[in-house]
Amino acid sequence: MPRSGRRPGQSGSREKIIAAARSHFAKDGYDHATVRAIATTARVDPALVLHFFGSKHDLFVAAMELPFDPSKFIPEIVAPGVDGLGERLVRRFIGVWDSREGRHLVGLIRSVVSHEGAAKMMREFFTHAVLGKIVSSLDISDPERRASLVASQLFGLAVVRYVMKLEPIASATPDELATWVGPNLQRYFTADLGTLAPQVVRGSGR
Amino acid sequence: MPRSGRRPGQSGSREKIIAAARSHFAKDGYDHATVRAIATTARVDPALVLHFFGSKHDLFVAAMELPFDPSKFIPEIVAPGVDGLGERLVRRFIGVWDSREGRHLVGLIRSVVSHEGAAKMMREFFTHAVLGKIVSSLDISDPERRASLVASQLFGLAVVRYVMKLEPIASATPDELATWVGPNLQRYFTADLGTLAPQVVRGSGR
Repeated sequence: MPRSGRRPGQSGSREKIIAAARSHFAKDGYDHATVRAIATTARVDPALVLHFFGSKHDLFVAAMELPFDPSKFIPEIVAPGVDGLGERLVRRFIGVWDSREGRHLVGLIRSVVSHEGAAKMMREFFTHAVLGKIVSSLDISDPERRASLVASQLFGLAVVRYVMKLEPIASATPDELATWVGPNLQRYFTADLGTLAPQVVRGSGR
Repeated sequence: MPRSGRRPGQSGSREKIIAAARSHFAKDGYDHATVRAIATTARVDPALVLHFFGSKHDLFVAAMELPFDPSKFIPEIVAPGVDGLGERLVRRFIGVWDSREGRHLVGLIRSVVSHEGAAKMMREFFTHAVLGKIVSSLDISDPERRASLVASQLFGLAVVRYVMKLEPIASATPDELATWVGPNLQRYFTADLGTLAPQVVRGSGR
């Protein structure tokens, strides 16, 4: 049911698009959900979806009610170069979570951990739209491995600080956390992490 | 209602103790739950609790249906000395999660993230009974800070591997993960992490 793309009834269309987007992202994941399928479910023209939201990326940010678009921070984190990248990322990550808007991110953690669909779509979005962009801007080997390792540390940091409230992480300042955790992210971004199939290492354990 | 400590009716007492323990650990946390209070709720003598379970620590492991007692692995991880400690811990941690018994640990992650009470009691148990023991065996500065940082990486690793299933972490072998992540834990255990109040650093960010 294509609409004209003009004012009357558009606020209703916007809500229908958001509802359809949530359903498709949860069911198909971020990668496989398409603007066309979302438009069909919402019974609007795909052009209207793009008119309202600009892109699938921006539609996702709106549908998930993310308090910010994480990809917006990438240029400032990456621009100064590789040196200090880990610390800048921690400081910015914690800064967003600590902000007024970041408070509802704990709900996002809970849904990612509780629901397979939420886990899949956030994993894909986070990997491609955020960490993937940072890592690809570095032009380094093994971008997926590095991105998943960085994700493991940042996700765990958020859980320990905001859910488990383990001290002293819970009360530390963003700068303190940047000092403590930043160099570990830096290693994930830049260090030689060993080969992907370390047969030599295997068996040296127990 | 003290019992005689002998056979008849003891299986019922055991279940009452377990039920009382779950309730007290969830309500009071691990640190503040006492064997005496649990015995009172279960209407048994505290000596019977210790007869069945040995200690509050062991009662917790039984009540939470942990598939293993994590503190049992500490000697083998710590005994060879500080060198390679991070890699040994990752290998053992992942080995337990990958095991048949470890499969239901994902449920534990979910309850820790969903319920304040579960988060508090697991935080206290994990910190004191597991990481605290490892860190105190090292005789190093800032044991709590180091333990909480290690917890952040291990918890995030478990979420990314078993809940979000992010590749290549999801399919990596324990030895691969030990190679990738071990040195980062090693830094948390042994490196100079900066002062706790880095006024100098503060303001150098944005």
